[in-house]
Amino acid sequence: MPYFDAASAAPLHPVGRQALLAALDEGWADPARLHREGRRARLLLDAAREAAAEAVGCRPDELVFTPSGTHAVHSGVSGALAGRRRVGGRLVVSAVEHSSVLHAGQAHAAAGGTVTEVPVGRTGAVDPEAFAAELRGPDGGAGSGAGSGAGSGAAGSDVALACLQSANHEVGTEQPVAEVAEACRAAGVPLLVDAAQSLGWGPVPEGWSLLAASAHKWGGPAGVGLLAVRKGVRFAPQGPSDERESGRAPGFENLPAIVAAAASLRAVRAEAVAEGARLRALVDRIRARVPELVPDVEVVGDPVRRLPHLVTFSCLYVDGETLLSELDREGFSVSSGSSCTSSTLTPSHVLRAMGVLSEGNVRVSLPAGTTEADVDRFLAVLPGVVTGVRDRLGAGAPAPGGGEDLVVDALGKRCPLPVIELAKVIGTVRVGGTVTVLADDEAARLDIPAWCEMRAQEYVGATPSPRGGHAYVVRRLS
Amino acid sequence: MPYFDAASAAPLHPVGRQALLAALDEGWADPARLHREGRRARLLLDAAREAAAEAVGCRPDELVFTPSGTHAVHSGVSGALAGRRRVGGRLVVSAVEHSSVLHAGQAHAAAGGTVTEVPVGRTGAVDPEAFAAELRGPDGGAGSGAGSGAGSGAAGSDVALACLQSANHEVGTEQPVAEVAEACRAAGVPLLVDAAQSLGWGPVPEGWSLLAASAHKWGGPAGVGLLAVRKGVRFAPQGPSDERESGRAPGFENLPAIVAAAASLRAVRAEAVAEGARLRALVDRIRARVPELVPDVEVVGDPVRRLPHLVTFSCLYVDGETLLSELDREGFSVSSGSSCTSSTLTPSHVLRAMGVLSEGNVRVSLPAGTTEADVDRFLAVLPGVVTGVRDRLGAGAPAPGGGEDLVVDALGKRCPLPVIELAKVIGTVRVGGTVTVLADDEAARLDIPAWCEMRAQEYVGATPSPRGGHAYVVRRLS
Repeated sequence: MPYFDAASAAPLHPVGRQALLAALDEGWADPARLHREGRRARLLLDAAREAAAEAVGCRPDELVFTPSGTHAVHSGVSGALAGRRRVGGRLVVSAVEHSSVLHAGQAHAAAGGTVTEVPVGRTGAVDPEAFAAELRGPDGGAGSGAGSGAGSGAAGSDVALACLQSANHEVGTEQPVAEVAEACRAAGVPLLVDAAQSLGWGPVPEGWSLLAASAHKWGGPAGVGLLAVRKGVRFAPQGPSDERESGRAPGFENLPAIVAAAASLRAVRAEAVAEGARLRALVDRIRARVPELVPDVEVVGDPVRRLPHLVTFSCLYVDGETLLSELDREGFSVSSGSSCTSSTLTPSHVLRAMGVLSEGNVRVSLPAGTTEADVDRFLAVLPGVVTGVRDRLGAGAPAPGGGEDLVVDALGKRCPLPVIELAKVIGTVRVGGTVTVLADDEAARLDIPAWCEMRAQEYVGATPSPRGGHAYVVRRLS
Repeated sequence: MPYFDAASAAPLHPVGRQALLAALDEGWADPARLHREGRRARLLLDAAREAAAEAVGCRPDELVFTPSGTHAVHSGVSGALAGRRRVGGRLVVSAVEHSSVLHAGQAHAAAGGTVTEVPVGRTGAVDPEAFAAELRGPDGGAGSGAGSGAGSGAAGSDVALACLQSANHEVGTEQPVAEVAEACRAAGVPLLVDAAQSLGWGPVPEGWSLLAASAHKWGGPAGVGLLAVRKGVRFAPQGPSDERESGRAPGFENLPAIVAAAASLRAVRAEAVAEGARLRALVDRIRARVPELVPDVEVVGDPVRRLPHLVTFSCLYVDGETLLSELDREGFSVSSGSSCTSSTLTPSHVLRAMGVLSEGNVRVSLPAGTTEADVDRFLAVLPGVVTGVRDRLGAGAPAPGGGEDLVVDALGKRCPLPVIELAKVIGTVRVGGTVTVLADDEAARLDIPAWCEMRAQEYVGATPSPRGGHAYVVRRLS
């Protein structure tokens, strides 16, 4: 039964499992104790730290283990912001960061700080120039930066910290980390890189000041994240602390899991080049074949500068939750950023920031070892599943005609129904006429313009509707 | 090789290990996902929560899993304080709480709050009356409390939260939780009970509002704590959060470890009555035999109202670190609250609050399965080890005489040397005469008065010494 949701979590790597079992026997004691069990635990902890630091590309004393990637991000952001409080209160992040970064930003804003989101293009990547512009101070001047590195508070910028993921978790697009790191260096602003999705595939480009990652994303166990803080970066851990992990991650060390995490990282890195190339070819096949096999599909994310194992596409006239459960019945476990699968009824902030279709969204992320046959079977099954969902929703049968402008009332209807209604009637108005869709579903904001782009119709705009929601106006061009 | 440091960490219970292995296979996926692996993980998480809630004595929706007991305490304290910010900013804790509670209190104080420490008696227990007195408002009036429970802000008290451990982690003394809970109820103040040391032995007495615990203390794995918050208790989680664990514990759930923690708790509880009685008898034997076998020893903590498996004693004229390493060479792993084993050179805050001797301190905490033979061998080895350390330090050979008052300069000398110097010369002054010890070691403050009490000499007092440290005056009585 193929599991295609490796970007959420992957099973523990066999090497990690073996290390975990050994460490359950040898590493259960408190590494802060002086007795032999404690000393043995300390040795294991030190060895794990050295292995992880080597994979990250930092000194062992720059790296601490945290209870999760989320904790690493939260501690990294709050500690770096507090360490540079005197420089300013502004946090600059890309608009497509993982929710843990955005939540840390919300907490910062709630405490009186400012958060600036750098927009992304249609592939999901930030523009390094645009990022650099946000690092300049309120007076528009860049920091002095000259050889100062991230530790110094460069004059002119009120930015305390910048955050950029190494690669996006929903669409796989790699971010221009090296370029942004250079801009940060020039502005004297430390850069935190969330490397959760990429660390198993290779080290992050040089230039970061802080780095966060999560073991269960690279085939390590749950319960382990890591936070590296370069020497010289001003860092003031927030909240209660103790003497463990250099005062940066309180609580008894989860040592067996830490040992397993380090062993897994080393193991996946040893396989990363070959396995990455293999999965990259499988993803290329999905990217090429899905639009051929399924009409009205948008494959999103950068086709080249991307994670090897991850691809995301969206299907018009389909709701994500039904699509997921139908694929699940066929034995395929995938994920979705569609609004219909979320309790908040809001489409994924990543797809929204990219301005791409969110309805019928599917994220496929292949775990190591995925076979060609698994992928082929997925490609064989997908078209029928999508057609089935569309048929049940009554999509795909536009009425003929050439009549007057129309108003479609889709208030109270959830994604993908507003778009389905639009698609049904567009052919009934004359070319040059308009369809106005009244909709209060959050996804319509994103999906109606995306539909227009995909179907070569003109998106005129939206105005608030007196009965709630918005009136979306679409002009028929063909 | 007997390991006598179960209160620090215990090896994973065999049932927990089995559960962990099963959950590595079945529970590695994200329980928030809709696919079959996610649903399977969700089922395991729900079952673990139900089992843990039953052992704690709460509803499953009142309990969340955290990455450690320390995280449970930190989140519980900060969330409860924030939830009652309008009532007041005072936190009341016993003076012998675990460092995680004290660190949370320090963070509260740093943010402008107030922390009141309730002193303990010589056994380490708080007096419920004294605790209740601290819950009264600044006007001295008790809260209305009438049937209001902990959720309401009773008029008159500015106390936002009270914390009391179920039993002390260093000396084993049980706290009067039921009585203090009743006082809290009457004052309308929520009570957080840190049950880290006792939860494996049985449920906490009724009346708590919040409860924190740590799995690796009950034979569960590292990486899991639990926090229970009774319905109706005002609680506002602090820091960035996400949708996991009711918004109270951010980050990907450490599911295999959570499953193992719940399974271990159930397993140790099933064995608790029988194993507790057996270990209680072994500890009774240590409590009785150590003072018979080793001269100048103080066994501390309540002899009856105590954890079944834990006993602490202190040996005059011995430094804790040497004693620990000598016992380690003999194959016994124990712990110590002596200043000499701590990087801060400060004796354990618990021993200090109790006013008992800290030098040569040894904590013995027996894991389940400890045999009578292990304990007997410990009792056979201990006297020789203590004598060896004392001989090397030149203790135990007081000079004879009946001379004039003396001043001993022990400035710059670390524990236990100031006390050894004192003991050496006390016999040389006439009965009624004094010895003044100049010492700047932090432990002397505690250990010189404790020595006087143990040796029936009079502790006159201490005054700051012009050359740093203090001048401790002792009068020879016999």
